[in-house]
Amino acid sequence: MKSVKVGICGLGTVGSGTFNVLGRNRREISARAGIEIDVIQVGARRDNPSCNTADVAVERDIFAVAKNPEVDILVELIGGTDVAKSLVLEAIAQGKHVVTANKALIAEHGNEIFAKAEAAGVQVMFEAAVAGGIPIIKALREGLAANRIQWLAGIINGTGNFILTEMRDKGRAFDDVLKEAQALGYAEADPTFDVEGIDAAHKLVILASLAFGIPLQFDKVFTEGISKVAPEDVGYAQELGYRIKHLGIARQSSAGIELRVHPTMIPEKRLIANVDGVMNAVLVKGDAVGPTLYYGAGAGAEPTASAVVADIIDVARVVQQGGRGIAPLAFYNAATQQPTMLPMDQVETAYYLRMLAEDRPGVLAQVSTILAEANISVEALIQKEPQQDAPQVPLILLTSRAIEHQLMSAITQIEALPVIHGEVTHIRVESLG
Amino acid sequence: MKSVKVGICGLGTVGSGTFNVLGRNRREISARAGIEIDVIQVGARRDNPSCNTADVAVERDIFAVAKNPEVDILVELIGGTDVAKSLVLEAIAQGKHVVTANKALIAEHGNEIFAKAEAAGVQVMFEAAVAGGIPIIKALREGLAANRIQWLAGIINGTGNFILTEMRDKGRAFDDVLKEAQALGYAEADPTFDVEGIDAAHKLVILASLAFGIPLQFDKVFTEGISKVAPEDVGYAQELGYRIKHLGIARQSSAGIELRVHPTMIPEKRLIANVDGVMNAVLVKGDAVGPTLYYGAGAGAEPTASAVVADIIDVARVVQQGGRGIAPLAFYNAATQQPTMLPMDQVETAYYLRMLAEDRPGVLAQVSTILAEANISVEALIQKEPQQDAPQVPLILLTSRAIEHQLMSAITQIEALPVIHGEVTHIRVESLG
Ligand SMILES: NC(=O)c1ccc[n+]([C@@H]2O[C@H](COP(=O)([O-])OP(=O)(O)OC[C@H]3O[C@@H](n4cnc5c(N)ncnc54)[C@H](OP(=O)(O)O)[C@@H]3O)[C@@H](O)[C@H]2O)c1
Ligand SMILES: NC(=O)c1ccc[n+]([C@@H]2O[C@H](COP(=O)([O-])OP(=O)(O)OC[C@H]3O[C@@H](n4cnc5c(N)ncnc54)[C@H](OP(=O)(O)O)[C@@H]3O)[C@@H](O)[C@H]2O)c1
Repeated sequence: MKSVKVGICGLGTVGSGTFNVLGRNRREISARAGIEIDVIQVGARRDNPSCNTADVAVERDIFAVAKNPEVDILVELIGGTDVAKSLVLEAIAQGKHVVTANKALIAEHGNEIFAKAEAAGVQVMFEAAVAGGIPIIKALREGLAANRIQWLAGIINGTGNFILTEMRDKGRAFDDVLKEAQALGYAEADPTFDVEGIDAAHKLVILASLAFGIPLQFDKVFTEGISKVAPEDVGYAQELGYRIKHLGIARQSSAGIELRVHPTMIPEKRLIANVDGVMNAVLVKGDAVGPTLYYGAGAGAEPTASAVVADIIDVARVVQQGGRGIAPLAFYNAATQQPTMLPMDQVETAYYLRMLAEDRPGVLAQVSTILAEANISVEALIQKEPQQDAPQVPLILLTSRAIEHQLMSAITQIEALPVIHGEVTHIRVESLG
Repeated sequence: MKSVKVGICGLGTVGSGTFNVLGRNRREISARAGIEIDVIQVGARRDNPSCNTADVAVERDIFAVAKNPEVDILVELIGGTDVAKSLVLEAIAQGKHVVTANKALIAEHGNEIFAKAEAAGVQVMFEAAVAGGIPIIKALREGLAANRIQWLAGIINGTGNFILTEMRDKGRAFDDVLKEAQALGYAEADPTFDVEGIDAAHKLVILASLAFGIPLQFDKVFTEGISKVAPEDVGYAQELGYRIKHLGIARQSSAGIELRVHPTMIPEKRLIANVDGVMNAVLVKGDAVGPTLYYGAGAGAEPTASAVVADIIDVARVVQQGGRGIAPLAFYNAATQQPTMLPMDQVETAYYLRMLAEDRPGVLAQVSTILAEANISVEALIQKEPQQDAPQVPLILLTSRAIEHQLMSAITQIEALPVIHGEVTHIRVESLG
């Protein structure tokens, strides 16, 4: 075999980055792969001016790439879950290995795709699907393979992290920063996927499967966005020595597996609390290795291409050397595991509570009595002077760890107190220690 | 094949950790490896009470393990470069794969060992040799394989980082903290390897080979320890918004390849500046991916075992599936490259300078004139009030980037000024941007 032959479908942001990196770093890539890697065909509905495809066959029909008998590896970079799924399944049916950056596709249809790939004896690789250029999938699947993974927590959506960072640094409101992020091209016109945590949930599901050896279960993720994070919460967090980050958290305990995406207060001294702007990071706790952290660009043409090309190189070695390669979800028996999932109302964590209280004696006693009856103690407290001539004052508490449903019923009781006005805001707190 | 058979030589800190992790996480490990991994023999001069070796053949002669025809993978955890080298070469000659945590062995004899391994068609893996449990070797060799690596900078000696962290947090002096580190077991009785940067140089050489695809060249590293870092420098660094870290830095430019270990001032806002205590981290800059960072425990029984076992799992897949596996130094042609090395006096970096100056007008002008004549400008300045009735004041400068030999000759001229007393202290400054 003289070279491994690649067909790229989709020549948008990541497709063009992949095409260009394979060209520019050809010498390094072939020396590392141990064989030349040639892009012999591109499937794209239209040309992309940032790519010089003069030496490559360009097909307008992407399925022609999946059917090309010369192609060893099909690289799916069109996005979406419909056509992309058909394309990937067609490539597998044709006996081709697949590399993709498509988190939605893997999170929602990965179980089916991996089963078909295993039956066909081909690899499906997806390093770029989580945290862009950070080799976090390789770290979980191979680098930490000796460990029982206890939990992981990730900043895995750059848009959300950019917004929270700007809110903190400049005291700005969510809507205001979102508009700027859209203008800068960090956020889509429809920002729901990013700010409501759906994109992070896709990625979290993939990380959890790799960490715990379980099937992908996108429908099991608890998801809460950042659109309701108020500037005052960002400020109080800082006063308490914390930062608010939109984290994807997966945890395995004797009670079951938790999968949750929500705004989280974390101690500012943790390294991950200092990951700012559009950057991503994943903190992983293994029983042998302890905590490890992986940091880098979570998106962008070339950072994402870095991960796509790393997968291509890994698969090229399998094409050349034979063997069945690595298990896509890290465990060869992942698909057959039947994990116990822990519903969100059973999850245990600490809480930040903010409420508006009447400025008179005994209010704190009433609130802490309700908490104490639910076995929840107050670990820290901020009580502010009344603002101007407002009759109420903000009361901010950090609680001990509590089961979510117990905390929620305590909140209902607190909200019913005549001395408390309006709703009680809650943000989950994790020490990540 | 029913299982892959492992022989462990050396049952000290890392050996016992490896034995125990393989036992405790057997279920996860075999599911990830796709095959059972059995430790069938241990070579140890004496028992280790933290390991239950009742079910394993224990040999007092470690070479018996290398010669055991049943063993597929020999794990070298005895340390040192003499016996360890003979043991590894014997195992290779016997057609066995090798996993080792031995940075001195790889840095000093890796080229020879890898050549013999290639000829014998076996793998030699060494993830644990750099930064303990952090899968940095896998990241450089595979995860970032698409990139031309521009530079990397690592906190790769936990003892040194612990000492510098304590000096900063508590304003203590080097000798004082070193004694405590020895009492805590973080530092050896002979701390030279750690604090003079030899251990970090071993690791840096390995990282640079993987990053740039060049042979291992331990004799080419410039090494400066931390024993001369003074408490006042730690303090002034902080005043200027910097931290002092003992970094291993490898950089590739058109001028050549730099390999250097020295105390380095870095902006406190960089994530790596906030890696404290015994923890390690490596920052890698690739042309496609941009900056990425890897953080975790750099030593300890189980963190190091995590890396050793990850290697065993990778090799187990090769044993089972066949193929020649991955190139040990990432590039299949690494051994044949003839890189241009940049001598230290040609390296360009910024500098922190501290000197004792007479407290009278014109002193700063004299100093900055000397620097300006060498094309070096002053970027920041701290001038202190005279302490008590001392006639001299400390003068602290941050310079622009300059070539080392030009800076050094400027320092010689500054030291010759009658208004400057004693030596000029210099610390290299890197922005790591
Ligand atoms: N952008 C990032 O930073 C990033 C990071 C990590 C992962 N990803 C993932 O990478 C994938 C690609 O993202 P992207 O940002 O590169 O998207 P993009 O810029 O929108 O590119 C997608 C490309 O696919 C083409 N395409 C879509 N459907 C097609 C079809 N049916 N037939 C032919 N061509 C089709 C589009 O062509 P037209 O222009 O003709 O519509 C477009 O050129 C997605 O799965 C995304 O989630 C992206
Ligand atoms: N400790 C860490 O955190 C760490 C981290 C990364 C890498 N490493 C590397 O891992 C390796 C092992 O380090 P370690 O900390 O585990 O050292 P260690 O605790 O001193 O263990 C070494 C073991 O090897 C045995 N040994 C040495 N020479 C022998 C010989 N000729 N025949 C039989 N047994 C022999 C010693 O036996 P005796 O007790 O009888 O002398 C001891 O049990 C070293 O290369 C080190 O650089 C260590």
